[in-house]
Amino acid sequence: MAKEPKQLDELFHDTLKDIYYAEKKILSALPKMAKAAQNEDLRAAFEKHKTETEGQIDRLEQVFELIEEKPQGKKCAAIEGILEEGQEIIKEYKGSPALDAGLVSAAQAVEHYEIARYGTLKTWAAELGLTQAVNLLEATLAEEKKTDETLTQLAESEVNQHAQAA
Amino acid sequence: MAKEPKQLDELFHDTLKDIYYAEKKILSALPKMAKAAQNEDLRAAFEKHKTETEGQIDRLEQVFELIEEKPQGKKCAAIEGILEEGQEIIKEYKGSPALDAGLVSAAQAVEHYEIARYGTLKTWAAELGLTQAVNLLEATLAEEKKTDETLTQLAESEVNQHAQAA
Repeated sequence: MAKEPKQLDELFHDTLKDIYYAEKKILSALPKMAKAAQNEDLRAAFEKHKTETEGQIDRLEQVFELIEEKPQGKKCAAIEGILEEGQEIIKEYKGSPALDAGLVSAAQAVEHYEIARYGTLKTWAAELGLTQAVNLLEATLAEEKKTDETLTQLAESEVNQHAQAA
Repeated sequence: MAKEPKQLDELFHDTLKDIYYAEKKILSALPKMAKAAQNEDLRAAFEKHKTETEGQIDRLEQVFELIEEKPQGKKCAAIEGILEEGQEIIKEYKGSPALDAGLVSAAQAVEHYEIARYGTLKTWAAELGLTQAVNLLEATLAEEKKTDETLTQLAESEVNQHAQAA
């Protein structure tokens, strides 16, 4: 019997594993970013987002349960690359007034990756008739967008001026 | 004499090199994505975005000129990872009705990376008083956001239904 080509439900499952892996990597990167941050508000934003990320991982586990699959990650080259760039900034800008601006930039690249993935997963869940999954993914998507906005506001109100003025 | 820590102008220059490298990689990935696309409108969207990308590279070269630097790329691990995931989808979903949905997903991850980078570069250019650069970066940012919206519309109106119905 010929193997059936993979369908949308499998693409959904594959992408769920991708973002599950990514979220766990992000969870372990956030304390390093918080520690590196010079600005108190930026540090607080990273710490808050760490707590949110724990909740997002929990929501992903609920989505795995809804499709009757075991929560499992799949190596995600994208998040590895994005976080690697963040690590480079921490190293190269250590002691620089521009460090925090670089940290915001790195964090926003992470947020946008997540916004892309959760946006996709949400529309696929709708297409697959997984209503409860749509709600869970939408809740996380809203949090990621909010975090991205908070970072923009912090950059514009505090971080970038400091980077330039020093 | 002790080396001065790197400043915001250097962070701007480093990030400019990062996105210049990324755009060139994207330029060579887009024909492969267009070729793989099954849906005609999706193929046309990738082809249109290839032309736009050429213009975006040209704008980046103008920004390099404004800061009196030679246009030069710097290996960007993030875009390598993001494009690698796109290649995997082309391979794993070849012949599947879900392939186009996967291509849209991969392309939106690329768009969001660019949206993050151009958003950051634009605010830094403003902070650095590079008014002409702000305009150039804003023009590209608007194009990237428009491309992302077009992809969402295509996914919702055509691509996802096909992926599921087959």
